[in-house]
Amino acid sequence: MTELYPICRSITGNGVRDSLKILQRYIPIKIHEVPTGTKAFDWTVPKEWNIKDGWIKDASGKKIIDFKSSNLHVLNYSAPIKNKIGLEELKEHIFTDLDHPDWIPYRTSYYQETWGFCMAHHQFIELSPGQYEVNIDTTLKNGHLTYGEYFIKGESDEEMIISCHICHPSLCNDNLSGITLATFLARQMRQRKLKKSFRFLFIPGTIGSIVWLSRNEHLFSNIKQGLVLANLGDNGPIVYKKSRIGNSELDKTVEFVLKNRQVDYSIRDFMPYGYDERQYCSPGINLPVGRITRTPHNEYPEYHTSADNLDFVDDSSLAVSLEILLEITELVDGNRKYMNLQPKCEPQLGRRGLYEALGGKSGDKINQLAMLWVLNYSDGEHSLLDISNRSNIEFKIISDTADLLRAHGLLEEVVYR
Amino acid sequence: MTELYPICRSITGNGVRDSLKILQRYIPIKIHEVPTGTKAFDWTVPKEWNIKDGWIKDASGKKIIDFKSSNLHVLNYSAPIKNKIGLEELKEHIFTDLDHPDWIPYRTSYYQETWGFCMAHHQFIELSPGQYEVNIDTTLKNGHLTYGEYFIKGESDEEMIISCHICHPSLCNDNLSGITLATFLARQMRQRKLKKSFRFLFIPGTIGSIVWLSRNEHLFSNIKQGLVLANLGDNGPIVYKKSRIGNSELDKTVEFVLKNRQVDYSIRDFMPYGYDERQYCSPGINLPVGRITRTPHNEYPEYHTSADNLDFVDDSSLAVSLEILLEITELVDGNRKYMNLQPKCEPQLGRRGLYEALGGKSGDKINQLAMLWVLNYSDGEHSLLDISNRSNIEFKIISDTADLLRAHGLLEEVVYR
Amino acid sequence: MTELYPICRSITGNGVRDSLKILQRYIPIKIHEVPTGTKAFDWTVPKEWNIKDGWIKDASGKKIIDFKSSNLHVLNYSAPIKNKIGLEELKEHIFTDLDHPDWIPYRTSYYQETWGFCMAHHQFIELSPGQYEVNIDTTLKNGHLTYGEYFIKGESDEEMIISCHICHPSLCNDNLSGITLATFLARQMRQRKLKKSFRFLFIPGTIGSIVWLSRNEHLFSNIKQGLVLANLGDNGPIVYKKSRIGNSELDKTVEFVLKNRQVDYSIRDFMPYGYDERQYCSPGINLPVGRITRTPHNEYPEYHTSADNLDFVDDSSLAVSLEILLEITELVDGNRKYMNLQPKCEPQLGRRGLYEALGGKSGDKINQLAMLWVLNYSDGEHSLLDISNRSNIEFKIISDTADLLRAHGLLEEVVYR
Repeated sequence: MTELYPICRSITGNGVRDSLKILQRYIPIKIHEVPTGTKAFDWTVPKEWNIKDGWIKDASGKKIIDFKSSNLHVLNYSAPIKNKIGLEELKEHIFTDLDHPDWIPYRTSYYQETWGFCMAHHQFIELSPGQYEVNIDTTLKNGHLTYGEYFIKGESDEEMIISCHICHPSLCNDNLSGITLATFLARQMRQRKLKKSFRFLFIPGTIGSIVWLSRNEHLFSNIKQGLVLANLGDNGPIVYKKSRIGNSELDKTVEFVLKNRQVDYSIRDFMPYGYDERQYCSPGINLPVGRITRTPHNEYPEYHTSADNLDFVDDSSLAVSLEILLEITELVDGNRKYMNLQPKCEPQLGRRGLYEALGGKSGDKINQLAMLWVLNYSDGEHSLLDISNRSNIEFKIISDTADLLRAHGLLEEVVYR
Repeated sequence: MTELYPICRSITGNGVRDSLKILQRYIPIKIHEVPTGTKAFDWTVPKEWNIKDGWIKDASGKKIIDFKSSNLHVLNYSAPIKNKIGLEELKEHIFTDLDHPDWIPYRTSYYQETWGFCMAHHQFIELSPGQYEVNIDTTLKNGHLTYGEYFIKGESDEEMIISCHICHPSLCNDNLSGITLATFLARQMRQRKLKKSFRFLFIPGTIGSIVWLSRNEHLFSNIKQGLVLANLGDNGPIVYKKSRIGNSELDKTVEFVLKNRQVDYSIRDFMPYGYDERQYCSPGINLPVGRITRTPHNEYPEYHTSADNLDFVDDSSLAVSLEILLEITELVDGNRKYMNLQPKCEPQLGRRGLYEALGGKSGDKINQLAMLWVLNYSDGEHSLLDISNRSNIEFKIISDTADLLRAHGLLEEVVYR
Repeated sequence: MTELYPICRSITGNGVRDSLKILQRYIPIKIHEVPTGTKAFDWTVPKEWNIKDGWIKDASGKKIIDFKSSNLHVLNYSAPIKNKIGLEELKEHIFTDLDHPDWIPYRTSYYQETWGFCMAHHQFIELSPGQYEVNIDTTLKNGHLTYGEYFIKGESDEEMIISCHICHPSLCNDNLSGITLATFLARQMRQRKLKKSFRFLFIPGTIGSIVWLSRNEHLFSNIKQGLVLANLGDNGPIVYKKSRIGNSELDKTVEFVLKNRQVDYSIRDFMPYGYDERQYCSPGINLPVGRITRTPHNEYPEYHTSADNLDFVDDSSLAVSLEILLEITELVDGNRKYMNLQPKCEPQLGRRGLYEALGGKSGDKINQLAMLWVLNYSDGEHSLLDISNRSNIEFKIISDTADLLRAHGLLEEVVYR
């Protein structure tokens, strides 16, 4: 995160490329380049934006703001400018945040060509009348939209997508937290022997997910779940936003993990405002994709300002977020359905050495109970997670029990396609 | 209501005709006459009943009760009588209300031919022994059952029925309140440009709705909602009784309106006792017809007595009831479903000038949010009312947003048939 | 119960036979004998076990425990033994209950051949070192598994099963309470004219229900409900455990009865641990069979010990349990569905003498209301129980009303097959 922080990313350009190259040191991300002008549903890939420098000098020639000290100072996707103008004209191109006069706000102008600067409001109000020299050294040219994709193939084609937006410049919680956690999650998961496949997407917000979706419609039927990651580094409680479908397998899985941990959390219904779940959950796509954050966008003052910096996120919040993501993906991977192959009455467990031969003793034995639960509800309808939920027996025991029963020929897995 | 109050109505006869003629001064009601003996499902249109006079004179020749002072004094639908009889025989033909000895009760005898009088119990107990002259000048002859119907044609054949019973004599809350509110509601609605059609029924209770339903089975598939109006002039809270279907579009609409207003209200489940919703919601008809009242029948002491008079209802209760009815019908009319024509990901609103081009600023904009909600849930399943309910954005904004999006070619209305 | 108590029952053998013969004095139970070695789904009928005697003598020749004083002293299904052994070896074959040192625990070893004794822990710890003579005079030979079945044929083939386990030796609540209540329930029900059929099963636990199910698959489509009876003699509240299907007609019926009585009760969801409902509700059988107990197994200290004796159960608890069972079976038998033959609007009740001809009077009449409820909801979907539940009118009135309406040709019963 420290290494990624200084880079000026946007929805296109070298900022994204450079960031993905850093991530490639951790996981073998494939970098895709999609040319300007490419159609993606109702959208078109815009020009590629790159920036070298940006500053304002006052009449005395002193740089009063400088891109090199904070890349938030230049309106993201700003058109180039080099001119001398008076204060009044300059003011029309400056954005500040009245509510937080010490912080530089983050502003963009992707789809309307204009130039601009962002600065702290307290500095803004002290600007004296006079001539200013403004310089924004950017290019807006035909080029590419860049995104990263890392696919871990499991036994099954059934897959989960993990998506984060990679278009924000020097902002940490939103969304270097999502980017780094996706990377470390992938790094740990590739060590595991996976039953299902997992696809990590590092994409520019909105246009990136739209481009990816438009190029990958053939995968939709494989995508059984998905998570959008953002704002996972602050110390607020976990907030899970359900998929549009609601009560999807994923929604149940995330709720199960959060309920069973010692963390504060809340679950929200889907709404069509937010991050890229907007696209994944648009009515014509409607994938079971939820979103996991700590404090959601717009709900903390530092959001989209220079105060969302390396100090704002903390190690332990990031670590717990990662643990939760690991647990969710482990559960997604481990969850499965079986058919009981001896469904008429209980099979004789004793004969198979599965049941304590000596009956009549008081006190339930958890493993015997787990066998009864798994056998009774392995009807092709209930997943192991459902069974764990109903029985209040932990998933690991249910899962191990299922393995044992399968080894004895009592269960058959219901396989995806 | 003042003009209608003195008229002696019954399920047939001139009382209904005269009342409908008064209403015709406000709205162009069509008066239907259905001959005695006409079959209507399990029923038959009864004889037409008319009354000229009715009184009891004591031994001294003094009128002790007189139809001309209150038409409740004569048992409604009473057979004629002219005779001199002793007190004991007379008592068998007199109805009083022990619980409210000052009030004249309202009683009927539609389907069993008999004669009778109603009087205050305190007067009844002071009758002295002796001869009494009784005179009820009524006729029960082949004639017609009369009802009124006013149909406002909207763009669509889809229709809502608004039904009130018109068979009660001098009783205000039950149901001059329903009759007058239906009339003023219709009067205001005919000024509007309506998308849907609205049919107002002014009918005698039970037999009137049965006759209407038996003659209009061809309309059932058009009737998407309906409301029975009664008891809307007292100052009790609004009580909405759901249709038998339950959770119908209408049930949702009424609940939405009541929830969003500053009124007390309650919602009750359907039960097969009450007003004409009994017929509309019989199992072989089962139309989505609810009932709206203030205090329901039987739940206020003045119900079906001379105390349900012009003093019992009040202007402001009637006015608020009318506002609620206007709001419900407006919402019924304005509610509709759309299909998003760009359902794969969000359409590019900015390109169409629909989205503030300058993004990244904190704070949701309600209109932008409304666009996202309408686009995401315009899947042919969710109505604008559903979207308003889910998003907590007011219906007007949702509706205007849908118009805007349709104008930009992004939505297509799901049209009824 | 007093007569059955001393008998040493097990899953096979003369104990079950002798017990069934006693029950035959009350109801004409048919006794079935299924040979050792018979296959039943995944199981095989085991050898027949019979016991004549069992004791331990100390070095002085004194019987320190004796089967004749409590049949719990011999491990149920114990293999025979006659030997002299030292204390240490003896201890390996003795079972005690540390938590309740005064009581003899009940233990079995059905599916693993071994021998053993059970004794009070306080006696166990005072055994002196030395030689002991052990004698268990049992036989384990090819023979039969015995169960009893009593079928009361009603008008319809639709049937309810009432099942109790008959394999426990001198234990009263578990399950002489179930056995005797099933017997007296059947004895009372055979006096009634029944619409539905009722089948009483007196079977050894687990293997008995598995054997019965494997031999009666052709009946499954007739079995519309079932109840397992156990632990009905203690003074705890009634506990009803739902069928696996959940919200079955039976679940609704039992809840209805319990809700309407002055007893404490609770309703639990199905779980695959317990008595023979485990088999009836296995996923490949899945019959709508619930379980009714007072305090469930394992939830009272006397369970499966010598303290579950004749003093532990009490007359009034048994009597109330029987009343509840009678009420449930009466309701199961009386519940039915009708189709309204005049479903379009209300039929004219007055013309048929069904409605008080004189209308307009305040105050609902319960019988009239019942007619409206039955007519409106007799749509082939709602049973009389559903109607009673919805209307809050007691079942007897609803049922009598339905009879009256059917007698007038207004209803037609929806007959099973």
